[in-house]
Amino acid sequence: VRTIDWVDGGVEIIDQTALPARTVTRRLSTVNELVAAIQTLAVRGAPALGVAGALGVALAARQYREEALAGAVLRLETARPTAVNLARGVQRAAARLAAGPDAVLAEALAVRDEEIASSAAMAARGADLVTELCGPAPRLLTHCNTGGLATVVGGTALGVVAELHRRGALRGVVVSETRPLLQGARLTAWELGQLGIGYQLAVDGAGPFLMAQGMVDAVILGADRICANGDVINKVGTYAHALGAQRAGIPFLVVAPESTVDSATPSGADVKIEDRSPSEVLSFAGTLVAPAGAGAINPAFDITPHDLVTAIVTDRRTLRPDPAFSGKM
Amino acid sequence: VRTIDWVDGGVEIIDQTALPARTVTRRLSTVNELVAAIQTLAVRGAPALGVAGALGVALAARQYREEALAGAVLRLETARPTAVNLARGVQRAAARLAAGPDAVLAEALAVRDEEIASSAAMAARGADLVTELCGPAPRLLTHCNTGGLATVVGGTALGVVAELHRRGALRGVVVSETRPLLQGARLTAWELGQLGIGYQLAVDGAGPFLMAQGMVDAVILGADRICANGDVINKVGTYAHALGAQRAGIPFLVVAPESTVDSATPSGADVKIEDRSPSEVLSFAGTLVAPAGAGAINPAFDITPHDLVTAIVTDRRTLRPDPAFSGKM
Repeated sequence: VRTIDWVDGGVEIIDQTALPARTVTRRLSTVNELVAAIQTLAVRGAPALGVAGALGVALAARQYREEALAGAVLRLETARPTAVNLARGVQRAAARLAAGPDAVLAEALAVRDEEIASSAAMAARGADLVTELCGPAPRLLTHCNTGGLATVVGGTALGVVAELHRRGALRGVVVSETRPLLQGARLTAWELGQLGIGYQLAVDGAGPFLMAQGMVDAVILGADRICANGDVINKVGTYAHALGAQRAGIPFLVVAPESTVDSATPSGADVKIEDRSPSEVLSFAGTLVAPAGAGAINPAFDITPHDLVTAIVTDRRTLRPDPAFSGKM
Repeated sequence: VRTIDWVDGGVEIIDQTALPARTVTRRLSTVNELVAAIQTLAVRGAPALGVAGALGVALAARQYREEALAGAVLRLETARPTAVNLARGVQRAAARLAAGPDAVLAEALAVRDEEIASSAAMAARGADLVTELCGPAPRLLTHCNTGGLATVVGGTALGVVAELHRRGALRGVVVSETRPLLQGARLTAWELGQLGIGYQLAVDGAGPFLMAQGMVDAVILGADRICANGDVINKVGTYAHALGAQRAGIPFLVVAPESTVDSATPSGADVKIEDRSPSEVLSFAGTLVAPAGAGAINPAFDITPHDLVTAIVTDRRTLRPDPAFSGKM
């Protein structure tokens, strides 16, 4: 099953807000429906957002003309700010607008197919690297969701985990729950269950401690944007795990397609970090936990400086930033 | 209002599992009721647990004799393993058993009164130190709950925060929510609201990032046990914040009474870290968030090595471990 696809003239997604309780397929027939799905995280994950953006332009090309069309493209492009894939997917498809709706759709489907191919390539390359660095039976910690739900099928970091499992080269997985929206507890746990891979959930704050205790051999996770200097923008909590990995002396591995590499952005300091609603922090699974009137600060992503990153695995390259890393991605 | 006290021949506590929705006073008339209250965290916080343990022996001395009494004392002493205060409070009161119930109660009330005096001393000493290190308008990040609810009245780290507020020497507070049981979001937020101190909640994983962004000037929190070498045992998530503070170059301050200093335990590696039920991670407020059948690992505390600690403030001393710290606490 694909997380997002073009079916009978519209976009179909697995609604990730309903998981793991229910697997619901939603049909999105208008740009506004798709923008709402992006903003509520019904569809999420950098590669999937790239496909969503491109397919959104295909919807827009059928729905609008002229100024209204330009406005719809802009709404798609800016629906969320941090993952580079969304704007890039929109721009790729929008570059074909002059050639008509069919050309736009063809480009959007190409974005989709490239993400599917990227997932397969990353899985093989990443699994090779994990085995090289950690031996034949590693225990991995992952954060947020980077599986098929974050791409189209397969995944980025979780695709590597699945490939290691298929090869019989995986000892265990710790899943960081990923507050506030619990993508680890809800989505990664669900995907690992579907794949028959054993795992243990842990609260986010426990990650560095489990590393210090020798219970984790490497951290492996995805990215929403990789800057020219190798800084990694990813789900909030990533940076804390990177600090834990550095102190424990274990590899910190980032797996993302080339479509997430943004060589036009020099460093993490240049990226807009999405601030989401305080209500996500003040509530837990729909229950208000904080006192009435409480305030909250809710950055959805954080910045991991490149010196904390052992390796970045894309569908085409394996890069190893070191303390003297000065290269361009 | 006292978090725990001896009233009319029994123990009365504010039930911390009901906060912040309701303020419920519970009366505990038997050792078994008190042990259950300790294990469910209806009463919690290292200093409060010391008082609970001592008052529990006062209950036991009235309820049991001979072998049954010894068994009750052991149940109290081992109700939870990590905070040194619990066993120490039990042992202090139990040392008076031969002198009869009134002598036991007098010792337990002395433990209570000493904790009240300690809170006041820590507040003054800690506030002086924060101002010295951070200037007149610091923004502080705290984790878990270290206020009056964790002691009898006043608090440890949160007592310092309150004192800074009283002095007009506090710019803001970030409260780390403290999964899985949300002591930050439920209890610290409630206490700060009662004190009229503004704050912002944040998910635990955001702490190090907020420090890196320059939004936090110091981390201030408590301890469940401080080892002879200065290693700090505290609520899980503490170590990740310490790593974040080190990288950001901001002070990491631990505030705890002398009753939490355990010079008989050489280092953090020698402390039993309580493993609590996976259900605390898998669900919240009765709502299961993970898929059915999910596993979890749930260490309730972690170990912060002394080289990450800028200063330890007790009611009698301010210690500043440095990378060459070899002292005995």
